[in-house]
Formats: sequence, C-alpha cells, structure tokens
Amino acid sequence: MSDLVKNAAGRKVPKVVNGVEQVPFQGVGKFKPTGRKAAPPVSQCGDYPADGDKIVKSLKEALKKCGLKSGMTISNHHHFRNGDKVMTQVFDAAAELGVKDLVWFPSAAFPCQEPIVEHLDSGVVARVEGSLNGPLGAYASQGKMAGPAVLRSHGGRWQAVQDGEVHIDIAILPAPTADSFGNATGDRGPSACGSLNFGLVDSLYADKVIVVTDNLVPFPCVPWQIQGNNVDYVVLLDEIGDPAKIVSGTTEITKSPDRLLIAEYTAKFIRCTEGYREGFSMQAGAGGTALSTAIFLAEMMREDGIKSRFMRGGSTKYLVQMLEEGLIEYILDGQTFDLEGVRSMRENPGHLATSPFTSYNWHGKGNFASLVDFVVLGATEVDLNFNANVVTHSDGRMLHGIGGWQNCLFSKCTILPIPSFRDRIPVIVDEVTTLVGPGELIDVIVTERGIAINPLRKDLIEQTKDSGLPIKTIAELQAEIEEICGGKPAKPEFTDEVVGLIKWVDGTALDTIFRVKS
Amino acid sequence: MSDLVKNAAGRKVPKVVNGVEQVPFQGVGKFKPTGRKAAPPVSQCGDYPADGDKIVKSLKEALKKCGLKSGMTISNHHHFRNGDKVMTQVFDAAAELGVKDLVWFPSAAFPCQEPIVEHLDSGVVARVEGSLNGPLGAYASQGKMAGPAVLRSHGGRWQAVQDGEVHIDIAILPAPTADSFGNATGDRGPSACGSLNFGLVDSLYADKVIVVTDNLVPFPCVPWQIQGNNVDYVVLLDEIGDPAKIVSGTTEITKSPDRLLIAEYTAKFIRCTEGYREGFSMQAGAGGTALSTAIFLAEMMREDGIKSRFMRGGSTKYLVQMLEEGLIEYILDGQTFDLEGVRSMRENPGHLATSPFTSYNWHGKGNFASLVDFVVLGATEVDLNFNANVVTHSDGRMLHGIGGWQNCLFSKCTILPIPSFRDRIPVIVDEVTTLVGPGELIDVIVTERGIAINPLRKDLIEQTKDSGLPIKTIAELQAEIEEICGGKPAKPEFTDEVVGLIKWVDGTALDTIFRVKS
Repeated sequence: MSDLVKNAAGRKVPKVVNGVEQVPFQGVGKFKPTGRKAAPPVSQCGDYPADGDKIVKSLKEALKKCGLKSGMTISNHHHFRNGDKVMTQVFDAAAELGVKDLVWFPSAAFPCQEPIVEHLDSGVVARVEGSLNGPLGAYASQGKMAGPAVLRSHGGRWQAVQDGEVHIDIAILPAPTADSFGNATGDRGPSACGSLNFGLVDSLYADKVIVVTDNLVPFPCVPWQIQGNNVDYVVLLDEIGDPAKIVSGTTEITKSPDRLLIAEYTAKFIRCTEGYREGFSMQAGAGGTALSTAIFLAEMMREDGIKSRFMRGGSTKYLVQMLEEGLIEYILDGQTFDLEGVRSMRENPGHLATSPFTSYNWHGKGNFASLVDFVVLGATEVDLNFNANVVTHSDGRMLHGIGGWQNCLFSKCTILPIPSFRDRIPVIVDEVTTLVGPGELIDVIVTERGIAINPLRKDLIEQTKDSGLPIKTIAELQAEIEEICGGKPAKPEFTDEVVGLIKWVDGTALDTIFRVKS
Repeated sequence: MSDLVKNAAGRKVPKVVNGVEQVPFQGVGKFKPTGRKAAPPVSQCGDYPADGDKIVKSLKEALKKCGLKSGMTISNHHHFRNGDKVMTQVFDAAAELGVKDLVWFPSAAFPCQEPIVEHLDSGVVARVEGSLNGPLGAYASQGKMAGPAVLRSHGGRWQAVQDGEVHIDIAILPAPTADSFGNATGDRGPSACGSLNFGLVDSLYADKVIVVTDNLVPFPCVPWQIQGNNVDYVVLLDEIGDPAKIVSGTTEITKSPDRLLIAEYTAKFIRCTEGYREGFSMQAGAGGTALSTAIFLAEMMREDGIKSRFMRGGSTKYLVQMLEEGLIEYILDGQTFDLEGVRSMRENPGHLATSPFTSYNWHGKGNFASLVDFVVLGATEVDLNFNANVVTHSDGRMLHGIGGWQNCLFSKCTILPIPSFRDRIPVIVDEVTTLVGPGELIDVIVTERGIAINPLRKDLIEQTKDSGLPIKTIAELQAEIEEICGGKPAKPEFTDEVVGLIKWVDGTALDTIFRVKS
C-alpha cells in the first residue's frame, strides 16, 4: 500500500502514484507553480517530405516510424466518444509489434474501447491514465491495472502535459478530415465530430504525432484545428469511426416531471440573480436536465428582452437554435454533441471551437471558466459542506470521468441541479465518498424538493430571498430526503488498496479512490 | 574585432555575436538541431483577475508590473509598419523608468520609429535585433549600436525564439481590436492591419505579454489571433496607429515598361512549366513587379481554364479579386498589405491568416514554404552562382530586412524578376556583397533583357526550351548588362568592424556585414 498523507481538504492521498511524487492539495488557489513548461524536441523540415506528403501505409508502419518502444505513453483525444474505431487498432498493432507496458493516456475512454481490456490483461498496456467510463472504469475499480488510475479534469489534462507531469511519446489524433501534411479538422467529413481540440495539447507537446483520417483533402485542410506543422505521419484508413455514435443525431431534453421541475427551478433561480442581465454568459452540459434548463431560460430571455454575449458548450441543437435566433452572440464550444452543433461550427462564424487551454487550463494567464456568469453541472453526491462528487457512485465504484466539471466550478455562480435521490439513495450525504469539487466553489444545489444556497454566497441568498422559490438550508433538504428514503445511505466499505487518484486543477492530489470490498 | 571563421558557403562569420556563440552555416539542410524548445514559465490563474479584466492604466504602469529591468529584451510585431504609434511610447516610458541597455527585438523596424535612435544614443536601448529598414538600418550600418545587428528571416525569428536563442522578457503587441482579457485581432478596428501573427511567437514564449489597443470590445474578441490566455496586461490608448500608413488604401501595379516586361516574362515562364497546372500554388510579394506578374498570370489562368488551390500573401486587392472571382480557392496570408486584404480576411472564409510557424519555421515538422509551386521574389544583387542578396545595397550599406525571403526560397520554383540594372549599376555581379540566399535554392532570374535558369534545374531548362522566351546563361546576361553599364560595378570598401550578422533559416551564421569605409 502507498504511503498516505492528509491534504488541506482532510483527505488522505498517496505520496507517490505510479512512481510520480504527488503534491497534496493545498486549498483552492494555494499551490504556486514555480517551474517552466514542458519543452518538446526541436524538429527540422529537412527530416520531413518537402512536398508535404506524410502519409504512411498503416498504423503499424506509423508506430514503427515513431520508434514505438515498451513503456511509452500513447495518447488520443476522445472526440469520437463511443464511435471510435481507431484506438483498439492502435493497441492491436502495438501488440503485433511486441511491445509491453504501454501507458494509455486518452482524454477519456469509452465503452467501445472495451477490447483494450485484453491488452491490459496481456500486459501490452500497463495502465490507463485518464477519465474512465463504463467497462474500463469497472476494470480499474477492481484494481486490475498495473497502477492506480489518475483522473484529471479536461483543464487538468492540459496542465499536466503542459507542465511536463505527463510526457506523451506518441499522440494518435483521429481526424474526420485531413490533408497529407497533417492539417486536420473535425467539423466535416463522414466521421465529423466538431472540434478536435481535446487533442490540441497532444499535438503541441508529444514527441511524435500521428493523424489518422478516412477523409483526405488536398492541402490546405481548412480550418486547421490541428496544425500539420506539429504532425509527423498521416495514416489513411477506410473508416475511423461510427458516425451515429460519435455525435447524436439529435440531443433530447428530459421528459421526467421531476427533472423538468429541477430545470425550471434552476432557470427561475438564475433569473432572480443580478448575474442575469444583458450580455450574461452561461455554460450548461448536454444532459437532459441541463438542456431543459437552457430551454426554460431561453423562454425567459425572450420575455425579458435579454441577450447572452456567449454560451459555452458542449453544443447542441438547442444552443444552435438560440445562436441562430440571435439570443446568443457567440457559442464558445468545447465539444460538439449533435449534428446540428457540427453544422453550426462549420457554418456560423459566431460558433467557435475552444480548447482546454483557452477554457480551462489553471496554469495559464487566466482562462475562460471564471468569466462565465452561470454554470449548470451534475453530481453523484453533494455533502453538507457543499463538497461534491462526480467520479464514484454511492457504492464507491469509479464509473465517471471528471470532464470539464472541476474547471467549470470557477464560474461566478455554480449550480448543481440534481434529483434528491436516485434508486431511493439520497444524493445529499454527510460527507462525499470521493471529493472532486471543494464546497467553497459550489454555490447552489437545486433539487425537485428545494434549493440550497452555500452560506458563503450571502449575495445570492439576498438576491433570491423574495423569489418565491423553495429555498432551504442544505441540512433541511437532507433531512427531508432522508425522511423519504428511510434514512442515510449505507456507506461502502473499502480495502486500503489505492485504485484511483483525483487530481485538482493545479495538479495536486485532491482525493484517493480505494478499492471497494467485494 | 570578433574572431572570424569561414563557413560552408566560404563566408567569414564571427564566432560570437553579442555574447552568443554562433554555429557557422553548414550548408542547406545540413545543421541538425538536437535541443528542446524554449520553456516559458508556468503561470497560474489565481495570479490573474477572475473577471478577466487585465487593463492597466498606462504603458508605463504595464512595464512596471512586468518587472522591467535594465538589460531586458523587449519585442513587438511590425504589422503596423510605418504607421506604428506604440513603440516610441514604450521606449519613452522605459526611459522615464530609468532603465538602460534594453535589447529591442522587433519583427521589423520602420522609419516612423526613428525617434528610438535617441534612446539608442542615450543607452536606454543598447541595440536592435531584427530587420532594420531606413534610418535605423543606416544607424546600425555606421556601427553606432552597442553590438552588431542580427538579421533573421520571418521564419528564422520564430525559430530563434522557439529554440531559446532569443529570450523575450516583455512582448508588446499592438492590437487593432482586443478585449480586456487580452484576446486580440488585427482584422478590424480603426487601426486594422489584417493578421497579427508576426507577434504570435512573442505571445507564446515571452515571460510577459502586453496587448495595446485603441478599440476595446466586450469578451470575447473574435477571432482571437492572439489568445488572452497568453497575455498579462492590456493597455488602452487613444490611438495606436496611423491607419493610412499601416495599410495602403490601395496597392498598385508597376507602370514602368521595363518592369511590365519583366512581369510578363515571369508569368509566361511559369505558364511553360509543368508546375503550372490545375490546383497549382504561388506566392508573390506586394512590390509592383510581383503584383503585375500576378495580373498577367490571372489572365492566362482565365484563358487556360486553370485554378489555383492556394496563393500565399502578402495579400492585396489583386489577390482578393482572384479569390472572389474563384481563380483561387484559398489565400494563405502572412501579412495584409491593403484595405481590401483586410476586408477579405474579415469576410472570406477562404482568406486565412497564417503565422511564421505554419508558413516558414524551419525547425518544425515541415512548413508551407516547400509546398508552394512558384515564388516570385526580389533581390538587390544576384551573382554568377545564383547566390542572392536582399539586405545590403551594392554600396555595402544595410538597408533592407530579410522578411520571408529566405524562407520562400524552399518553394518548388524560386523566380527572381529583377531589373538588369539600377542607377546604371548592374544587378548581376561576380559575387554578391552579402550572401542572404544560397544559389542552389534560386532557380530563375528574370530581367527585361533575358531569363537565366540555374543549371541545377535541368527540368526547367527542358520544359522551357521551346518557349520562345529569351533564355540565356547568367554569364551571357551579365556580359550584356555590363556592356550597357560600362563594366562591372565598383566594389565597396569595408573596415573589419562587424555591424551585422545574417542568420540562415536554421539559426546558423550565413554571412557578415562589415562597416563600409567612409
């Protein structure tokens, strides 16, 4: 078992994870980095084809030319979500090349990548460092990887690569459209996914970069979301993704009456605050409740004659409708969730692809997250101190990635609209199983049974006191929910085996995920 | 006097310049860099305003906050050309703050910045490292700076900063439009200049970055050619430039019959080669002859039903007309020369701002320059080995910058359309006064008296042999010109004082400029 130390949040975190010394969380904004950014090797044009044609005939060939060796770190972006057809082929090729102990560093892993479990079992891949959803999360939860999972936010992934905490040897960048020089875009082509910017940091800092496409266009591929000047090889495959699983044909709002009520409360709450004014900004996810909140809010904006300067996406057809109607001036898009979002990014000059650098990187000269007036997020658990969890379930299993969630907490008003219980398990708990978001950054909890405002936000309490909304203390809300559910939820029992580490946005160790007793 | 060593081009170059050890030129493509890129310090958002407002009240205040100290390097882009109103104010403020021995590292200096000579005389500025035009060039030619001028191409400037040869302490980025977060664009606003990308490398690698604007817009400023996430402070001034001197109201083609003939020969030559085909590409400057070449070529393209996939700019109204007519699919624009170019960059999705990184940086994984079928450039001198000079005049004075000239030589066909003599001084000489472009990269010389093809380009000689064009050897051409001018030009006499160093695109020392005997 790793040596543990208590951090500023009172959580025990390992001193060393996968051979890397950890800095324990020191409090929000307290850790001051002193180093310099990672310095990739200097290339020279003479080593690249003068005609710009970097195409090699297969993934295996490209990996060989990149000098693939055992122990290397291989990265990719997750813009293809559950429709990715590239990464299993990459690790199949690596297995054929006879390498072992690779570290896989995706921006997120998806259920379609379950075949990679075979390469984890055989030792071709030692461990996955990145957000784990579904089967790979379950695998890691069982302590089956050669080392704990390290979970970072989207901004934290940029920070880790930029600061040299994670060195990428070879980046694999699946690209819906590309030219032979390696310029690539995600906003068009049969596997269109919108933005490719989760792979931007990989393209900037990896030693070697491979673009993989099924839609080659003559130079220049425009827009060049990924710049060919950072790319070593281009591989052309018949099919790199399953379009239907990359983006939804259409995203849908919730139909659940409880969730619609939560969405309505959330929109009404926003409307009562001073932040809701001409030119305000907001970020909402693509979940049903968040989408419904946006719909309610759009109606209020029309009534009030108020326009938004920008909305941050995950973009969906609902945001696109608001943009094209003129309710929003700009969509600043982190990832594109449906076909309308992809079309809009391609067609609307006001629909911009942003990157984790512009939006989320804590180790930059500011980022967009703190400029956003309202952010609407989810959570698996919230506790009496407003601490929240998005990674583990109440049974202690690690099943979700952090995504941009931690980064968004820096918004001027962070709202978590959540059902008061799931499967009769209360969502408000005495203490979160896993600390992912420190309570001081979480302002409002909205449930179908009432709204709790963080006591630190006296301004919001004041602004909404005559709103007629069911505002309660979080303790009142908890008591009410426990009454319905028949008491507090059972606590999972853990072994002392570390299976995961939650990083804070500054790279410090925020919390530990232990293996659940079976 | 510095210690000199003979390089692979047979030129004597100093071993050390301004305290920095030099690698002598080793031949085109021969120098293999082994280092890693420069690593800027890691910042953190907690040190920047959460509301994104980075405005400080004056240039002086911004310089103080950046920790301006004697000996620091201050950089800026030259997109405001002869209309810049910011940089003299910067050095005035530095003088008021009592610092000395600054190094000024502009991407180019212009006559309007002549007042900075006062700060060179007083020792506030020790020397200028960058392309010097006009009065500052003359000043440096007289050996008045505390150290030689170091002249680099646009791509070489990126390479030098990227590779850590030049460390920028404070970058000053004048911006026609910006938001308070520091996002900035050049394509709109009263001082619109088109692209800001000569300042991109400064924004990425400088320790501190100051954006200076006279046109503040609410966040987000779109497009963000400069990303606010790299910016420390924003300064708002009443007026940052003189619009009439930033871009021409309109660029004009040549009216000189000789130059029109040269332009026509050039276009006809291109038409005879295999490179002239559907989808070909070209780069031509904004000089009268180059513009006229483009006009002749456009007419031929219409006749032949041929379209260009992309043209590289310097963009002008002539390129924009071709784009909007559909003769060109894309303009890949390095700098914008007239108002129509600025409008087009703002309005046409096919008119893209490129940077010295994408276009020219030799220490990247390829760049655009070698993908271009034809490049049309100028020269002050060409010699019998096709070596060319763009920096010094035949009298030995250093009067021009290198610009993108060296970088463009990597095109598939480099053509220099030049008058055979200027002021009765022949342009073809036995040996160039200053070597700026190695002859092996220069393919064709076009004069009003004939065309000389580099003997290395047997393919071009073959393709054009039945063209009816006046193709001659360069020696024949030289003899003919000397006949008219009454012999070879007088050679300037030099002292052994080094006043300038010509860098090759890979950072090696290509040639030395010595002080002319007065």
